[in-house]
Amino acid sequence: MDSLVNADDTRADHSAEPAPARPLMKGQQTRAAILDAALALASHIGLEGLSIGALAEVTGMSKSGVFAHFGSREELQISVVREYHAKFEDEVFRPSMKAPRGLPRLRALFDRWVRRVSVEIDSGCIYISGAVEFDDRPGPVRDALVTMVQTWQDALERAIGAAVDEGHLRADTDAGQLLFEIHGLILALHHDARFLRHAGAEARARAALERLLAHAATPHQGSAAPTDPL
Amino acid sequence: MDSLVNADDTRADHSAEPAPARPLMKGQQTRAAILDAALALASHIGLEGLSIGALAEVTGMSKSGVFAHFGSREELQISVVREYHAKFEDEVFRPSMKAPRGLPRLRALFDRWVRRVSVEIDSGCIYISGAVEFDDRPGPVRDALVTMVQTWQDALERAIGAAVDEGHLRADTDAGQLLFEIHGLILALHHDARFLRHAGAEARARAALERLLAHAATPHQGSAAPTDPL
Repeated sequence: MDSLVNADDTRADHSAEPAPARPLMKGQQTRAAILDAALALASHIGLEGLSIGALAEVTGMSKSGVFAHFGSREELQISVVREYHAKFEDEVFRPSMKAPRGLPRLRALFDRWVRRVSVEIDSGCIYISGAVEFDDRPGPVRDALVTMVQTWQDALERAIGAAVDEGHLRADTDAGQLLFEIHGLILALHHDARFLRHAGAEARARAALERLLAHAATPHQGSAAPTDPL
Repeated sequence: MDSLVNADDTRADHSAEPAPARPLMKGQQTRAAILDAALALASHIGLEGLSIGALAEVTGMSKSGVFAHFGSREELQISVVREYHAKFEDEVFRPSMKAPRGLPRLRALFDRWVRRVSVEIDSGCIYISGAVEFDDRPGPVRDALVTMVQTWQDALERAIGAAVDEGHLRADTDAGQLLFEIHGLILALHHDARFLRHAGAEARARAALERLLAHAATPHQGSAAPTDPL
């Protein structure tokens, strides 16, 4: 469970693999720079706003220069989804794995997720905006997004299951139900902070998590007072 | 509390009022037909996808014909937001007001909201997609969306407050916190059903509401077993 993204999970279902697994060393830095710019652009205007032309303008490169690294708009969009996922894994998932298995690790995952969404108040979360942009647009970009979001949800559900195994959460905890409710808190935080500009949305999300965990905790976990596992 | 939309709330802050309050009777039917088509289009491709040209194509009218009713793309987008809100009020808010004040009315509001989001699995909710499309695009369309969503959230918060007043929910209930968590359930339902295509998301949302209400209920409300107030 050291990697959120399992290569088999995320790539096996795409018959048309858009990015070469091993780009030539020569072009890697340029490709990485274009990808950084694409990620920043997509965070602001959405994945659907991405185009070879817009990226050429932002990076000061020629269209054919960008095209040499990403052969199509769709390949570019999928590469951005993967890049976002890699960053999410580095910032949220991997450091949380250092917390002890069970409730401390589950809290660490939520805490870093909340912090990431809070940082993204000014730029936007590609998972959340992408879900809305692509929910009824079938194709490889939607497939890539669904795979990444599902991978993250599966990791969280495993963390909930581990908290049950460790005896921190009650044996009759419905992990899928708890995951659904925790995810709702993140979506409400994103909505209220970014769209309605409500102050205090982060505190509401954290308070709700504590109530959820207190409800699911085994008796000896008591009131499940927050600890900082990081 | 018979109207969700208070004219003062929703219109006062827009210096440039885009739609005439009383269009000439002559053009009203055409305008209504264009608006219906615009609402259907926006539900599928988003408010940002709306344009005078796209609407002309869908309705078989000339661009100048559409333009005569909606003088700009922005005016068209704002009119669609208001039309969506009017339908939401008719389907969700107004019938729920017939349920007894307090917990039955709050449950009726949630129930109709869930049903509406479930119906929208195939077409999309303009509030949810609009929030993501316009969260960082300042201007009158964003303002109109925020006003409508906030009006709806205020109505729900009043319904929670009434359930406290009626003695159905505990006096120390934090209405804003409960609203935040209820809204999260709706967002998670929309996300999981529409984007991840998970079966059972509606049941998860309903189960979570019952747990939320049971937690907030006064002792004599017992386990807050669901009743059908409709």
